[in-house]
Amino acid sequence: MEEERRLRGLWGEARELSLGTSGQVDCLDAPPSPLRFLRDYVSANKPCLVSRAATRGWPAISLWSDDAYLRRVLHGCAVSVHLTPHGRADSLVPRPSACGRPRGLCFASAAVRSMDFSDALALIAATGSPSSPTVAYAQQQNDCFRAEYSALAGDVVPDVPWATEALGCLPEAVNLWIGNGRSETSFHKDHYENLYAVITGEKHFLLLPPTDVHRLYIRHYPAARYVLDDGKDATGELHLELEEPERQVPWCSVDPYPETPESMAEQREAFPLYFDGPKPFECIVKAGEILYLETVGCRRVRHAI
Amino acid sequence: MEEERRLRGLWGEARELSLGTSGQVDCLDAPPSPLRFLRDYVSANKPCLVSRAATRGWPAISLWSDDAYLRRVLHGCAVSVHLTPHGRADSLVPRPSACGRPRGLCFASAAVRSMDFSDALALIAATGSPSSPTVAYAQQQNDCFRAEYSALAGDVVPDVPWATEALGCLPEAVNLWIGNGRSETSFHKDHYENLYAVITGEKHFLLLPPTDVHRLYIRHYPAARYVLDDGKDATGELHLELEEPERQVPWCSVDPYPETPESMAEQREAFPLYFDGPKPFECIVKAGEILYLETVGCRRVRHAI
Repeated sequence: MEEERRLRGLWGEARELSLGTSGQVDCLDAPPSPLRFLRDYVSANKPCLVSRAATRGWPAISLWSDDAYLRRVLHGCAVSVHLTPHGRADSLVPRPSACGRPRGLCFASAAVRSMDFSDALALIAATGSPSSPTVAYAQQQNDCFRAEYSALAGDVVPDVPWATEALGCLPEAVNLWIGNGRSETSFHKDHYENLYAVITGEKHFLLLPPTDVHRLYIRHYPAARYVLDDGKDATGELHLELEEPERQVPWCSVDPYPETPESMAEQREAFPLYFDGPKPFECIVKAGEILYLETVGCRRVRHAI
Repeated sequence: MEEERRLRGLWGEARELSLGTSGQVDCLDAPPSPLRFLRDYVSANKPCLVSRAATRGWPAISLWSDDAYLRRVLHGCAVSVHLTPHGRADSLVPRPSACGRPRGLCFASAAVRSMDFSDALALIAATGSPSSPTVAYAQQQNDCFRAEYSALAGDVVPDVPWATEALGCLPEAVNLWIGNGRSETSFHKDHYENLYAVITGEKHFLLLPPTDVHRLYIRHYPAARYVLDDGKDATGELHLELEEPERQVPWCSVDPYPETPESMAEQREAFPLYFDGPKPFECIVKAGEILYLETVGCRRVRHAI
């Protein structure tokens, strides 16, 4: 017990040293100088939110809220769409049942379909309804903006100059996510420096500092993926298949937003370091703002493009 | 064995990623910009050597090689002098023998005397001879330059501007070391960002990157200190006393420069990760140059002020 008390004290000190005691993500009125960005945020592993000034002059801010514009520019372009039953890409769900198999959770990836952009946009809108058995989320994390959405390249800057100068390199990947109100990403950790710009809508982040990684209870889960029945269109029901041969994926065990009081009680009991510890940082990124982070954390999406 | 092979591969990759493959410390012809210094060196935990341009305009470079100047300016000032039998401050030596005590090594600190600067300078010169039973080294790491040597403040800059801007703070401590050809510091690790300027003479560094910390075999040793017999002057013989009550100090076990072939054979057998691994970085800092480091490493001093 004494050891645990001292360990908690150490975590608290590390957290306070790295992030201060305000409990809030720093908000900057204007883009920082490269030196300030590197010194006060990147080097310190500390997130910051830059106001709308960060995207001043990006045509995307006014153009992309018009679906007709996007349909016209991306006419004939195929984009990747992730399909899940609940809107959560890459998350823990109960293992598919099978005789003799132990119960438990598995790490479920989305079914991925490539489709015409107009169809994708219609599907994302339609599956935002709670009655839809699937949720569509246009995304593909392998530099998809510069590949699938290259027709939109002129609407944004090719790189964020203060970050390029601070980090000493151009972006390795530029990704675009288009979701609806049900789109959500489960708790995870990234090993990259991220600049997250919201163009329309907003995205809610729940963030933990790197020194709190133990509070996520990272464990290994068997990989599974959602599959659409052959011949079914993208609104059809999904079923879950474990990968063969089995592959183990390390993933965060905590669900910070359990849906029922029963599952909240289960979560609290299983993961006391998360639920009894200091509150994560909450941060809402609005259209035109940019969040910098290289942080253990969770992202919830709301209407973000 | 397979595990060890993979671990060695990982160490190699971490080393190469953090320091590259040149095997040499980066040399810069001119002081770096604050952004470059922070991005390419501080953030990367990578040392760099800045040429004589780093100290252009410091009066100390021409003034301090004149002993008469130093004696005049520091007339009447008391300074701290560390005394050891071998020139190595803070190093591992055989435990003082005592009946019934187990043999082994202890961590020996120098005897410290405060004396008039002129006497200190004469003692440092006299104890550079191999026949001297003690070696004197003027130093005291608690900001001694701004305390004991404040009369010399005008001869150097109060801070190094590119480092101050990059790190976002003024120096927490400014220390001065005045040694002779026998002055040496044993392998150790620092938890500070260091800028090491040589004013006269030169200093030889042997450096390991932070990812190689396991190669130093850090273990606990009982603390001891050298003591001058009462009434003896500072050139008298020193004896070693274990601290009472016993205090354990974590210290690097490796001696990279054993004096005899026998002790070299012992060292190689006891510390294979150091002796069989990649070569440490060697770096000679000459008068007027500045070395930046925040690194696990060893420093050997030659005639450094």
